[in-house]
Amino acid sequence: MTRDAHEARSRTGRRSGDSGSKVAILAAARLQFAEYGYDGTTIRGIAAAAGVDPALVHHFYGTKERLFAAATELPIVPSEAINAALASREPGRSLGTHLAYSALALWERADMRGAFQAMLRSALTSEQAAATLRDFIAEAILGPVASAAAGADAGNAAYRASLVATQMLGLAVGRYVLRFGPVAQASKEELAVAIGPAIDRYLTGDLGQAGRGH
Amino acid sequence: MTRDAHEARSRTGRRSGDSGSKVAILAAARLQFAEYGYDGTTIRGIAAAAGVDPALVHHFYGTKERLFAAATELPIVPSEAINAALASREPGRSLGTHLAYSALALWERADMRGAFQAMLRSALTSEQAAATLRDFIAEAILGPVASAAAGADAGNAAYRASLVATQMLGLAVGRYVLRFGPVAQASKEELAVAIGPAIDRYLTGDLGQAGRGH
Repeated sequence: MTRDAHEARSRTGRRSGDSGSKVAILAAARLQFAEYGYDGTTIRGIAAAAGVDPALVHHFYGTKERLFAAATELPIVPSEAINAALASREPGRSLGTHLAYSALALWERADMRGAFQAMLRSALTSEQAAATLRDFIAEAILGPVASAAAGADAGNAAYRASLVATQMLGLAVGRYVLRFGPVAQASKEELAVAIGPAIDRYLTGDLGQAGRGH
Repeated sequence: MTRDAHEARSRTGRRSGDSGSKVAILAAARLQFAEYGYDGTTIRGIAAAAGVDPALVHHFYGTKERLFAAATELPIVPSEAINAALASREPGRSLGTHLAYSALALWERADMRGAFQAMLRSALTSEQAAATLRDFIAEAILGPVASAAAGADAGNAAYRASLVATQMLGLAVGRYVLRFGPVAQASKEELAVAIGPAIDRYLTGDLGQAGRGH
């Protein structure tokens, strides 16, 4: 039996029951992420606060990252988007250039732009939102990026990924928030080829004598 | 006669008159910068709003940039700080590494840290503050940086300077606002040598085929 048929069958209106549970789970998730941050929040804790079984939260959302994306109205799941970008590189294009272009294309998707900028602004104005976003970025975004860098220099992967994050974050703030003329007007391709080699160097290049030991 | 002696001599209490004028000028400056932005505000307009002669505004503050710094409680004058940094490079150190180190040292000065972060946060939450900061950065910071880049590629200097700005801005947001672990914990020197070559490339290197025409 399909899930739809199963839901439609329910005598007590399972669809609206599901919908009520989803609303309760999302409301609980927003409160818990805001109060405990990304790392400090668990599926189990959200389920308890929403008065449902943890299995139902898993059934609806799968992972904490997907639940966070839903709670913050992010229309993508970042780790999945990054892994898709990492897997779709054309031959002859550097990883840095490809990642820069993929990020710009994602940020400029019609359904992403508002969500991304709202998240950026809220993180930049609230210490708690910043901490939550930092932990989320560290797990969902820097994790996959660090894996891409790890081949070259495993011990430094987290440092390398966070250097990549500084360049990509500054690109986003400069292009969408402050809107520096030439960077706001450049095409995605222009920016990708300008910034790509810096990303490549952060991922796998020589970071200088003082860069050792991370 | 010294200026102090001249002021002390005044029968009607010239010192407090000066102090009153300075307060009125700063108050008028804050209102005008907030309403008209950095580019749209003039010394003459501020003087008129404060009910003083423009010459008095020049006497107290010299330039619009210095008045803006005073109005926003910025303890430095950015174009002067950048020109000092550009002039103080050690032989054998790249311009990009030197600029990155100088910026980190400036941001971490005890009297700067609060002002810099307050400015960043306000720009990131208010469209008008963002526009004002963008114009101010373009004139006071990107101008001198573009001059440093102009030797290589004059037509692209503004684009090059704004690419530098994206990396430095992202470094500031990543280290001080979001506080990504490895970037928040690294020393200034580590970060300068890691990021310097990217800054050098933005200033004078090859920006890729698509980068032409700015």
